[in-house]
Amino acid sequence: MIPDQKVLFDTFLHVLDIVGTFVFAMSGATVGVRHKLDLFGVLVLSFVAATFGGITRDVIIGAIPPAAINDWRYLTVSIAAGLLTFYRFPLTARLANPAQVFDAAGLALVAVAGAGKALAYHLGPTAAILLGMVTGIGGGIVRDVLVREVPVVFRTELYAVTAFAGAFTFVAGTYVGVPSNIAAGAGAILCFGLRLAAIKYRLKLPVSPGET
Amino acid sequence: MIPDQKVLFDTFLHVLDIVGTFVFAMSGATVGVRHKLDLFGVLVLSFVAATFGGITRDVIIGAIPPAAINDWRYLTVSIAAGLLTFYRFPLTARLANPAQVFDAAGLALVAVAGAGKALAYHLGPTAAILLGMVTGIGGGIVRDVLVREVPVVFRTELYAVTAFAGAFTFVAGTYVGVPSNIAAGAGAILCFGLRLAAIKYRLKLPVSPGET
Amino acid sequence: MIPDQKVLFDTFLHVLDIVGTFVFAMSGATVGVRHKLDLFGVLVLSFVAATFGGITRDVIIGAIPPAAINDWRYLTVSIAAGLLTFYRFPLTARLANPAQVFDAAGLALVAVAGAGKALAYHLGPTAAILLGMVTGIGGGIVRDVLVREVPVVFRTELYAVTAFAGAFTFVAGTYVGVPSNIAAGAGAILCFGLRLAAIKYRLKLPVSPGET
Repeated sequence: MIPDQKVLFDTFLHVLDIVGTFVFAMSGATVGVRHKLDLFGVLVLSFVAATFGGITRDVIIGAIPPAAINDWRYLTVSIAAGLLTFYRFPLTARLANPAQVFDAAGLALVAVAGAGKALAYHLGPTAAILLGMVTGIGGGIVRDVLVREVPVVFRTELYAVTAFAGAFTFVAGTYVGVPSNIAAGAGAILCFGLRLAAIKYRLKLPVSPGET
Repeated sequence: MIPDQKVLFDTFLHVLDIVGTFVFAMSGATVGVRHKLDLFGVLVLSFVAATFGGITRDVIIGAIPPAAINDWRYLTVSIAAGLLTFYRFPLTARLANPAQVFDAAGLALVAVAGAGKALAYHLGPTAAILLGMVTGIGGGIVRDVLVREVPVVFRTELYAVTAFAGAFTFVAGTYVGVPSNIAAGAGAILCFGLRLAAIKYRLKLPVSPGET
Repeated sequence: MIPDQKVLFDTFLHVLDIVGTFVFAMSGATVGVRHKLDLFGVLVLSFVAATFGGITRDVIIGAIPPAAINDWRYLTVSIAAGLLTFYRFPLTARLANPAQVFDAAGLALVAVAGAGKALAYHLGPTAAILLGMVTGIGGGIVRDVLVREVPVVFRTELYAVTAFAGAFTFVAGTYVGVPSNIAAGAGAILCFGLRLAAIKYRLKLPVSPGET
C-alpha cells in the first residue's frame, strides 16, 4: 500500500476494533439487564463480554499485562455501551438487528487479529487458530455462565465455526506464503460473510441424537 | 513513622490479611454447606472464595507463581475456616453478623493492597483500580458460579462499588502526590465505611427497567 | 532402569497420557450430548474437559504457552473423542464402565505428573500438591459449570481426594529422599487403587448437617 492508504487502513481497523468492543459490550449489558442485574453487574457483563476472550488469549501467550486491562479505552468503551444499554434499553433492543452486523464484523476482526497476535508470539498454527476462536467467543461464554445460561455459542446458528473458518483461512494462507494482509482480509471476509449467511438462513450445526 | 510504629503497623496489616482470608473462606464454606456439597467441595469453595481474586490479579500482572498458591498459610487458613464452618455450622451462622464487619475490613484491605500490587508491577492507574476490584470480588463471583448462583455481588447492597471507591481513592491520591500510606489508609477507610453504611441502610444500585 | 526399560517406560507414560486425554475428552463430550449441545459445543466440552486443568496449571506456574494449547496432539485426540461420542453415543455409553477404569488411570497420571511439573518449575510442596489436584479435576469442574451443573467432583464418590492422595504421596516421598520415579509410581498406584475402591464400594465424603 502507499502510505496514505496504509494510514487509512489502520484507522479503519482501529475504528472497527472500537466498534467491535462496543457491540460485544452491548451484548453483555443486554444479557445483564434481562437478568435484572444491578448497574454494577451490567457494567461487569459489558466489560467481560467485550474483553474476556482477549484477556484469556494474552495470558495464554504471555502478553502480560493484557491490552484490554492496561489500555483504558477498552474499559471506557465498555462502560459507555453498558450505560447506554442500561438507561436506554428499548432503544438498544431496537438496535439489535443492525448490531448483529457489527457483531459479525467484530467477530471477524478479533478472530483474525487474535490468531495473528498468537503467531506474533511464536505459537504454532494450531494454537493460533484455537486462540483466534477463543478471542472471538471467550467473552460470550463467560457472559452467559455468569447469568447461569448454557453459552449461546454452543446452541445458536453458526457462530464459533465462522470464527474458526476466519482464523483457519488466515493462518493457513500465511503458512503457504500468501502475504499476511491478504490472508487476513480473506479470513475476515469469509468469517463475516458466513456469519451473515448463518443469521439469514438460520444455519445450525447438528445435535447428537444421544441415547435414543 | 518511627520504627516501632512501622513494626506495629505491618503486624496489624498482616493480622488483617489473615483475618480477611479467614472471613472470605468462611463465606465460601457457608455457600458450600447450604448447597449440600461434600467436605471436599466445601473446602474448595473456602479456598476459591479466599484466593481466586488474588490469583487472577497475580496471573494478569505476571506475579508468577501467585502468592496464594505458593504461600501455604493461605491454604491452611482457608482449610481451617472451611472445617470450622463444616462441623460447626450453627455457630458460624450466628457469627454471620460480626463476620460482615470483618468481611468489610478484608474487602477494604484487599482492594487497596491489590491496586498497590498492580502499581508495583508497573500497570497504569485504570488497570490498578480494576485489579483492586478484581482482588476484592473475584473470589465471591467464582464461589457463586460454582454452585449455580448468579453472583451476589451483582445483586446485593453496594459491595463492588465500595471496593472501587477504595481502590480509586488510593490510586488517585498516589497520582496527585499524596504519600502512599496516607492514600492507602484513606482508600481503605472509605471502602470500609461505605460498606458498613450500605449494610446498615440497605443501599443498593438501581436496576434497569428493561423493556417495559 | 537400563536404557531399553527406560524407553519402554516413557512409551508407556506417553500412551497413558494420550489415553487419559481421550477418556477425559469423552467425559466432556458425553455431558455435552446429554445437554443437547450442538456439534461445536460438544467438541468444546471435549477439549475443555481434557485440557483445562493442565492449562490452568501451566498459566499459574508460568509454563507459557501451555502444552495443551501448543501441541496439536491434545486437540486432535480431544476432537476424535468428541466426534466418536457425538456420532456413536450408544456405543460410548456402553463403554462408560470400562472408561471409568481408564479415567482412574488418567487421573492418577495427571495428578502425579501435574505435581511433578510444578516442582520442576520451582514451586513449593504445598503448591505442587494443589496443582496436581487442579490438573486432575480442573477440566471436570469447568465442563460441569459450562452446562450449569454443580461440579460432580464436589458431590461424587471420592475423586479429588484420590488425586490429592496421589500428589501428596509423590511430593512427600520426593521430599524425604525417595527416588522420584518410585515416589511417582507409589503416588499413581495409590490414586488409581483408591479411586477404583471408591467406585466399587461407593465411598463418599460426609456432607455437613447444616443448620438443622
